[in-house]
Amino acid sequence: MGTEERLAELGLVLPPEPQVPPSVRIPFEWARVVGDRVVLSGHGALDAAGVPAGPFGRVPGAVSLEDAQASARSAGLAMLSSLRRALGDLDRVQDWVVVNGFVNADPGYPQTTAVLNPVSDLLLEVFAADAGRHARTAIGVSALPMDLPVIVTAEVIVTP
Amino acid sequence: MGTEERLAELGLVLPPEPQVPPSVRIPFEWARVVGDRVVLSGHGALDAAGVPAGPFGRVPGAVSLEDAQASARSAGLAMLSSLRRALGDLDRVQDWVVVNGFVNADPGYPQTTAVLNPVSDLLLEVFAADAGRHARTAIGVSALPMDLPVIVTAEVIVTP
Amino acid sequence: MGTEERLAELGLVLPPEPQVPPSVRIPFEWARVVGDRVVLSGHGALDAAGVPAGPFGRVPGAVSLEDAQASARSAGLAMLSSLRRALGDLDRVQDWVVVNGFVNADPGYPQTTAVLNPVSDLLLEVFAADAGRHARTAIGVSALPMDLPVIVTAEVIVTP
Repeated sequence: MGTEERLAELGLVLPPEPQVPPSVRIPFEWARVVGDRVVLSGHGALDAAGVPAGPFGRVPGAVSLEDAQASARSAGLAMLSSLRRALGDLDRVQDWVVVNGFVNADPGYPQTTAVLNPVSDLLLEVFAADAGRHARTAIGVSALPMDLPVIVTAEVIVTP
Repeated sequence: MGTEERLAELGLVLPPEPQVPPSVRIPFEWARVVGDRVVLSGHGALDAAGVPAGPFGRVPGAVSLEDAQASARSAGLAMLSSLRRALGDLDRVQDWVVVNGFVNADPGYPQTTAVLNPVSDLLLEVFAADAGRHARTAIGVSALPMDLPVIVTAEVIVTP
Repeated sequence: MGTEERLAELGLVLPPEPQVPPSVRIPFEWARVVGDRVVLSGHGALDAAGVPAGPFGRVPGAVSLEDAQASARSAGLAMLSSLRRALGDLDRVQDWVVVNGFVNADPGYPQTTAVLNPVSDLLLEVFAADAGRHARTAIGVSALPMDLPVIVTAEVIVTP
């Protein structure tokens, strides 16, 4: 079964391109394709219209672990959407390489690993066999664009 | 027009190699060339002598958005300088892949995207057509080397 | 002299695979091998049984510079251990590319470079000639998994 079929089977709908506020300028690519590599920029949660979606703020003071996990999963879907727009379709994905997760964390919050697990689970669910496997790093940072609770980046190897 | 010509046309002068204080030891490469890839280490703003340049401190409490943007642009020029020293000349740059920006940010500062935009603008200005395009992530962190307000890293593909 | 011989000569013993607490789920690879590249996930200090090792907390308020440096070196050894398990033996390492260090830092702590230097020194000591050279970025973050004082990630090029 191809990845696009698998997405449909799981009932997953990818959001459209991020619609940032007019005050935010984006002079970079959401997905940069160079040779057989695609590097994905920092993605946050989006609603069904592609608008950055709350909750906003720091984890766990303003945003609970559970809400941060849902935000991380949504950011993962946004990343898949950018990847699909860059490639035409997700069946060209050969191997995930690495995922980096950044949590807008209160100082000393020790659960950044748990916040990012839904992103890893999503990739392992959607991409067949070993293709979804990846290295990962999850850290807590002091500030994120638009005060999002989580952003994720990644690198992927694709077929030509 | 080549990149070196373009730099001259824009009146851009690159700083010399970073001159860190004697108390700071640098057991890494500013630019690591491996095959057709160059990875650039974390660069901050430099003055015309290559000395780390202020303002220092966190954004926006101690350093304004505008000053942080100027610092980011200077860090971008420092990165180009390391890249040129590693390659001989910048005309060997084929494609920018990704830029990562780290802002020494007060907790919850939502404007890290704006701080980094001058770096992206610089690359798009200097490198022809699609070569300067890149993925990007800009996050706020709690501390940076020498209390710089911004550092940037990047990866580039080059011709042999 | 090969890298494995060099490790033995230096009296360095690598820890076993990380033994995280049962409450921590790890749905990612400690070392992801894709083609001739290996990306290493965020590694922290481990004791001789592979258990995450203290001290825990932020630098320098709760953990001194010296203790953070020892923790960073231990994290470097943990990274070499994951790399060896992924490759069979470390003699397949051709070139280090980049090391990223994340310090659980009190706001404004300016010494993140010094915290990471023992990791760079370790690689230059263990890997012959130019193979251990690398780009590096060392930043201070607000939170790390399990409240570790330092984690490190890296990318390496290997022979088939």
